[in-house]
Amino acid sequence: MKKYVAEAIGTFTLTLFGCGSAAIAGATLGTLGIAFAFGLSIVAMAFAIGNVSGCHINPAVTFGLYADKRISLKDLFGYWIGQFAGGIVAAFVLMLIINSCDALGGVTATGLGTNGFGEASTTGISMVGAFAVEVILTAVFVLTILGVTASEKASNFAGIVIGLTLTFVHIMGIPLTGTSVNPARSFGPALAMAVQGNTLALERAWVFIFAPLVGAGIAAAIFALFKGYYSTQE
Amino acid sequence: MKKYVAEAIGTFTLTLFGCGSAAIAGATLGTLGIAFAFGLSIVAMAFAIGNVSGCHINPAVTFGLYADKRISLKDLFGYWIGQFAGGIVAAFVLMLIINSCDALGGVTATGLGTNGFGEASTTGISMVGAFAVEVILTAVFVLTILGVTASEKASNFAGIVIGLTLTFVHIMGIPLTGTSVNPARSFGPALAMAVQGNTLALERAWVFIFAPLVGAGIAAAIFALFKGYYSTQE
Amino acid sequence: MKKYVAEAIGTFTLTLFGCGSAAIAGATLGTLGIAFAFGLSIVAMAFAIGNVSGCHINPAVTFGLYADKRISLKDLFGYWIGQFAGGIVAAFVLMLIINSCDALGGVTATGLGTNGFGEASTTGISMVGAFAVEVILTAVFVLTILGVTASEKASNFAGIVIGLTLTFVHIMGIPLTGTSVNPARSFGPALAMAVQGNTLALERAWVFIFAPLVGAGIAAAIFALFKGYYSTQE
Amino acid sequence: MKKYVAEAIGTFTLTLFGCGSAAIAGATLGTLGIAFAFGLSIVAMAFAIGNVSGCHINPAVTFGLYADKRISLKDLFGYWIGQFAGGIVAAFVLMLIINSCDALGGVTATGLGTNGFGEASTTGISMVGAFAVEVILTAVFVLTILGVTASEKASNFAGIVIGLTLTFVHIMGIPLTGTSVNPARSFGPALAMAVQGNTLALERAWVFIFAPLVGAGIAAAIFALFKGYYSTQE
Repeated sequence: MKKYVAEAIGTFTLTLFGCGSAAIAGATLGTLGIAFAFGLSIVAMAFAIGNVSGCHINPAVTFGLYADKRISLKDLFGYWIGQFAGGIVAAFVLMLIINSCDALGGVTATGLGTNGFGEASTTGISMVGAFAVEVILTAVFVLTILGVTASEKASNFAGIVIGLTLTFVHIMGIPLTGTSVNPARSFGPALAMAVQGNTLALERAWVFIFAPLVGAGIAAAIFALFKGYYSTQE
Repeated sequence: MKKYVAEAIGTFTLTLFGCGSAAIAGATLGTLGIAFAFGLSIVAMAFAIGNVSGCHINPAVTFGLYADKRISLKDLFGYWIGQFAGGIVAAFVLMLIINSCDALGGVTATGLGTNGFGEASTTGISMVGAFAVEVILTAVFVLTILGVTASEKASNFAGIVIGLTLTFVHIMGIPLTGTSVNPARSFGPALAMAVQGNTLALERAWVFIFAPLVGAGIAAAIFALFKGYYSTQE
Repeated sequence: MKKYVAEAIGTFTLTLFGCGSAAIAGATLGTLGIAFAFGLSIVAMAFAIGNVSGCHINPAVTFGLYADKRISLKDLFGYWIGQFAGGIVAAFVLMLIINSCDALGGVTATGLGTNGFGEASTTGISMVGAFAVEVILTAVFVLTILGVTASEKASNFAGIVIGLTLTFVHIMGIPLTGTSVNPARSFGPALAMAVQGNTLALERAWVFIFAPLVGAGIAAAIFALFKGYYSTQE
Repeated sequence: MKKYVAEAIGTFTLTLFGCGSAAIAGATLGTLGIAFAFGLSIVAMAFAIGNVSGCHINPAVTFGLYADKRISLKDLFGYWIGQFAGGIVAAFVLMLIINSCDALGGVTATGLGTNGFGEASTTGISMVGAFAVEVILTAVFVLTILGVTASEKASNFAGIVIGLTLTFVHIMGIPLTGTSVNPARSFGPALAMAVQGNTLALERAWVFIFAPLVGAGIAAAIFALFKGYYSTQE
C-alpha cells in the first residue's frame, strides 16, 4: 500500500512541477528549461521514494516493467491508481496556484501544460504524427529504463540517468506534442481543464494514454532481444 | 564549532552566488540559469564542506534532519546561527559588488535577489499562495534530502542529487516567489535591503522563514512513513 | 549481429533526436539546448544498449577504438554498417515527422539538421576551417572516450561523461559547422535532403566523414602516448 | 614530462572551447551556455588526461594543491609552463578559426573571450571590484577541488563535481569580469589580442593572474582548518 502512496506523491511532483513550469514559467524558461523541470522531477523523486516503490511515477513505465515481468499484475493496477491519483491532484493544485497569481490571467491564459496536436501544438502536428512521436519518445525512454535498472553497475545512480533521459525526450518533443510519454501526466491536466469547461485535451487524452503504452511495449520487446547481455555480461 | 563555521561558509556561497546571479545576471541568464546557480552551489559546497558539517546550508534542511532525529538540539541552533550569519554577510558582500559596477545602477536597480509576493512577484502571487508554494517546494526538497542521505548506495553522490533537486524546485518557483525554501537565503538579502531603506522584503521575511520550516516538517512526517524501506531494503 | 542492431538503434536515436531538435525546436532551444539534445542521446543510449555493443553509435568513435586495438576489423565494418543504417533511417523518419506538422513548412523550411560550411554555416566558416574544426572537436571527443573507458574507476558512469562531452563539443561547434564529429549523423540527413532535390549537403558530406575519422586517429595517437598511465596508475 | 604535455592539452581545450564559445557563440548561447562550455571542458579533460596529470589545467588550481603540499615545487613550475603554453596556443588557434569565418568580422568584432573590467565589462565593474570578485570565485572553486579530491568516496567522479563547480562560478562571474579564476585562460587570449594591436587585456592581465592565485591561497588556508575531517571521517 505504501508503494502506491509513494507513486502518488512522485507523480504529483512530476506533474505539478513539470506542467507547472510549462504553464507558469514557459516563456522565460524556454524549451530546455521545461525539459529540465520534467527530467529533474525524476532525479528528485528517484532518491526520495525510490526505495519504497522504485519510482516509476508513470503508467507507461510501470507497463514496460510489467511486460518485462518485473512486477505483478496486482502492482500494475495499484501503481496505476496511485499514479493517476497523483496526476489529477497535481493538476487541481496547479490550478489553485495559478489562480492565486494576479498577473497570470488564470488557467485560461496559461493552460495547465496539457499535451495536444493540431491547433493545440505549436508545430501543428497531425494526430497520426502525434501518436507516432509519442510511441517513439516513450520507446526510447522506457528502453533506457529497462537497461539501466537491469545493470547492476549503474543501479546506484539510475535515477540520474532516467531523469536526464526524460529531459532528453522532452527537448524535441515539446514543440511537437508537449511530450507526454506518461498517461498520468497527460490525464490530470486534461481533466482539470475539462472541469473548467475546456474539453479539448480530455477528448484527445486517449492519444497520450495509448501511444505511451504502445511505446513501452515496443521497448520491452526490443529489450527482450538484448536481455542476454544483461545477465551474462556483468 | 568548525561545523558551524563550515555552515556559514556554505550558506555565504549559496546566498552570494544564487542571489547574485539573480540580481546581476538575471536578464541574460533566464530562469533556468538562476536555477542552476542556486543548485550548483550545493554541488560545490557538498564536496567542499560536506565532510565537516554535512552541508545543510539551509535552516529548513537542518530542521528537517532534526525532526528526523539525525542531529541534536544544540547543533540545530549552532547550525542556524552559522547559516544566518553566512546569509547576512553574503548579502552585504553582494551589495558591495553591485556598488562597484558602474553600469548596474546600484542595489536600487538590481535588488538583491530577495523573495516576495504581490507586487514583488512577477506573477503577482498572493501571500497565501506564496506561503503554500514555499511549503510544497520545501517539502519536495527536504524529502529528497532525507531519502538520498538515508540510502547508503547513493550517499557518495548525494551532493549532486540534492543540488539538482534545488535547481528543480527553483525552475517553477522563481516566477512565483523567487524560490526561498531557505530562511537564511531570504533573511540576509531582506536585511541588507532594509539597511538601504527598502523594508518591504524584511517585513515579509516571516513568510520565507516559516513556510520552509513547515515544508521541512511535512517532509519529515512523510519520510517517517517510508522509513522502514530505508533500513531494511538495502 | 545483435551488436550491430544495437548500434543501429542507438545511432537512429542520436540522429533523430539531435538533428530533430535542431530542425524542429532550434529557434526556441538555442545552441545550448541543441547541444544537450545530442549529448543526452549518449546518456540514454549508453545505458539502453551499452551492455550489448558498448554504444559507440558513431563511426569515428568505432574507428578510434579500432585504432587503439580494442575491437576487430570485422566489428569495425559491422558497427559502421549498423551506424550508417541507423542514421539514414532516422533522417527519413525525421522527414516524415516534419511533414506531419502543418506549421513547420516542411523540410525546405526546417532543414534536417545537416552539417555545412560557407553559405550553409551561420558564421560562414570556410571549407578548410570546417575541416580543421571537425578534426579538433572529434579529437577532443574521442580522446575523452578512450580515457574514460580505459579507467576502471570511471567505467560505471562513462556514459554520463561521454554524453556531457558530446554536449561540450557541440556548444562551440554548432555556429561553425553544426558539429558533426559523427559521419553517420551527417550522412543520413545529407542523403535525405538529396532525395528531396537539395544535394548541397551530400556533395560536401565527405568533409564530415573524413574530418571526424582524422580527428579520431589523432586522439588514438595522443592516447597511445598516455597509455602507461591507464594500466599502472589505478 | 608527459604530465606537462597533458596539462598543455587540457588547458588548450579549456581555453579554446571556453573562450571560443564566448567569442563565437556568445549571443545565441547566453551566460548559462558559456558557463557550461567552460565547466564541461573539465568534465571532458578530467577523464581524458586525469590519470596522467590529475587535470589541473589551471595555474591557480596547481598553486592551491602546492599550498596544500600535494605536489612538488618542480611540478608547480612544470605544470605552469604546460598550462600557459596550452592557453597561448589555444588563443592563436581560436584566432585562426574566427578568421576563417566570413560572417564573424574577425577578432576585432568577436574578441577572444578575454577577461576585463571597467569599459571591458558589461557591468562596468571597477578594478578593485574585479580583483575581489576573482578572489572569491577562485576561493570557492579551489576549496571545492581540495575537498572533493581529498575525499576517497568522491574521487571517482571528482571531474564531474569540479566541472559543475567551474560552471557555477561562471554564472555570476561572466557579466562581472568574464570569469577568469584561471591565469592561463586569461593570459593566452590577452597575448593574442595584443599581437593584433589591442593591448588593453594584456595590460590588465595581472589582475587575472594574481587574484586567482590569492583566491587559491585563501582556499588552501580554509581547507587547512577543515583537514582533520578528511583524514578521520571516512
